[in-house]
Amino acid sequence: MKKVVTIGGGTGSYTLLTGIKNIPDIEISAIVAMTDDGGSTGVLRDELGVLPPGDARQCLVALSEQQEIVRKLMSYRFQDGGLSGHNFGNILLAGLEKVTGSFTQGVEVASDILKVRGRVLPITDCIATLHAILSNGDNVTGEDTLNQTNFKENTIQELYLDETVTINPHASYAIIEADYIIIGPGNHYCSILPNLIVTGCREAFAKSSTKIIYIPNLTNKKGHTLNWTVADYVKDIENYTGKSADYILVNTEAPSKEQVEAYELQEGDGVLTQNTTPHDTRMVTESLISHYITPYNPKDSIAHLRSFIRHDSDKLGMVIQKIIHNASTPKESILLPD
Amino acid sequence: MKKVVTIGGGTGSYTLLTGIKNIPDIEISAIVAMTDDGGSTGVLRDELGVLPPGDARQCLVALSEQQEIVRKLMSYRFQDGGLSGHNFGNILLAGLEKVTGSFTQGVEVASDILKVRGRVLPITDCIATLHAILSNGDNVTGEDTLNQTNFKENTIQELYLDETVTINPHASYAIIEADYIIIGPGNHYCSILPNLIVTGCREAFAKSSTKIIYIPNLTNKKGHTLNWTVADYVKDIENYTGKSADYILVNTEAPSKEQVEAYELQEGDGVLTQNTTPHDTRMVTESLISHYITPYNPKDSIAHLRSFIRHDSDKLGMVIQKIIHNASTPKESILLPD
Repeated sequence: MKKVVTIGGGTGSYTLLTGIKNIPDIEISAIVAMTDDGGSTGVLRDELGVLPPGDARQCLVALSEQQEIVRKLMSYRFQDGGLSGHNFGNILLAGLEKVTGSFTQGVEVASDILKVRGRVLPITDCIATLHAILSNGDNVTGEDTLNQTNFKENTIQELYLDETVTINPHASYAIIEADYIIIGPGNHYCSILPNLIVTGCREAFAKSSTKIIYIPNLTNKKGHTLNWTVADYVKDIENYTGKSADYILVNTEAPSKEQVEAYELQEGDGVLTQNTTPHDTRMVTESLISHYITPYNPKDSIAHLRSFIRHDSDKLGMVIQKIIHNASTPKESILLPD
Repeated sequence: MKKVVTIGGGTGSYTLLTGIKNIPDIEISAIVAMTDDGGSTGVLRDELGVLPPGDARQCLVALSEQQEIVRKLMSYRFQDGGLSGHNFGNILLAGLEKVTGSFTQGVEVASDILKVRGRVLPITDCIATLHAILSNGDNVTGEDTLNQTNFKENTIQELYLDETVTINPHASYAIIEADYIIIGPGNHYCSILPNLIVTGCREAFAKSSTKIIYIPNLTNKKGHTLNWTVADYVKDIENYTGKSADYILVNTEAPSKEQVEAYELQEGDGVLTQNTTPHDTRMVTESLISHYITPYNPKDSIAHLRSFIRHDSDKLGMVIQKIIHNASTPKESILLPD
């Protein structure tokens, strides 16, 4: 039984977990960031003083083996009255935090209700506010604000949380004991790195002899990582973990014209992540792209978290299964044809 | 296996179901009224257009075999923000009605999540508004309004729903097939009768060869049933069902001075239900009273639904078990000493 840890948050983790949940002989621990402060999650955080439930909810749904209607309920968004805008699943996690007194315990009870295969682990049980300092000296506070900030010609100088935001011991243990840690896909500054900068995360990586599988995003984020290449992402992630990636999953199939057009409506031109270092032997190159286009819905307040160009769960699952269960063979054997 | 149906709603049904849920060799179907329009339930009904979840929630919790923390969550009331005042369990049932498209189906899914022993059956799947005509000709519309109306010297001339409010076929079938139907305890005009006046309910009773166990309330409701005796309640219930009660459960133990004082703080003087017909052989006389006093909480908006003088679950359970499993012996054998 291989211990597999995923690190991310939001839709990217949902896609990944959906793809890997049925890989045989693995135990999944899904680590999620706790810095979200936008949308329904942000309102619950502000009004009830609970930890942000949105990312954990998506992971729970991905790993749930409950009947379809219950999984649908978890993502159901109320439309009217005082509940308007809230996902049911967010309310469930907020309520469970209130009655158990701990977000982590609440997630455990939710996992039981939802018959979750594996575990969902908040990276921290602390109230965490994301801070960024840009290269021009500007301070940005809060994940939602950062997500909506256009850096323009600046870059992120420093991304940090209060030092007192310490890693959840269960998450630390999972990282140390992992056979494989899968990082990404997901919003680089607002989903992936908010895990890695928690006090104690880098130390857990240092103690771990895990293999690291990194999944760079298919697209760059306008105003954040525009023109980044696969190598830029890998370098940044390695900088934060203090470890080399062992496998880098690179998509080889171009999106369709329709996908690009739909994407550019939201994100502007030229945001596809290019791979300019094709000879890195750590790269596993394969078609990883989904051809499904999410219908655009201006009423959906988290539409900006979704992407018209995204990974395909099944394709990710197949490649990762191959890596995990063929790991003793030479890496070349998993380099699939373009 | 005896088929036992309870008819009521709210706290009375919660008390009864808690007491009978562990009686061996019975299958419980808890029928609940669907006319509640006050409190959190009323807000959800108005804002979301869902059927009133509050009474069904209490029955689900009573029959749930889920871990204690989940049962506690179902009754947890949010204190702040847009969710303020709502029970989590009400939100769950509202969400399930939205995703399944039917309150009855939603209750079934909730029963599965909550590992309910038995079934909870809404008396109707129709939107139902309670109407009353008083003896002075006044019309009262809505259960919550009726609950708060002081009839003064008047009586209820007619209590009715729209004729189109028809019985849930599952509830009808349960009544027809029942071995025992337990009616009460509960608010006479606002919890018990709103079940019996649904179109098709009286017809279901007519087709049934069930034994009927009636549990009159320990106290009269000021402004509604002041000075009613046990016989008055029995007569009214028999009038609505069209059937005689077979067993009438009458409490023999007076409440404590503290209970009476606490009760009179809310309800005024002299509201204990008197039994002036002690020689009716259908009466099963026993101590049925609870000695627990619910702390008064002015912030609790449904405090008026609770009572300082109420039945004890265990005592009810023991008497009912005796009735059901000794039913072939002469009735005298279940007349327990005072």
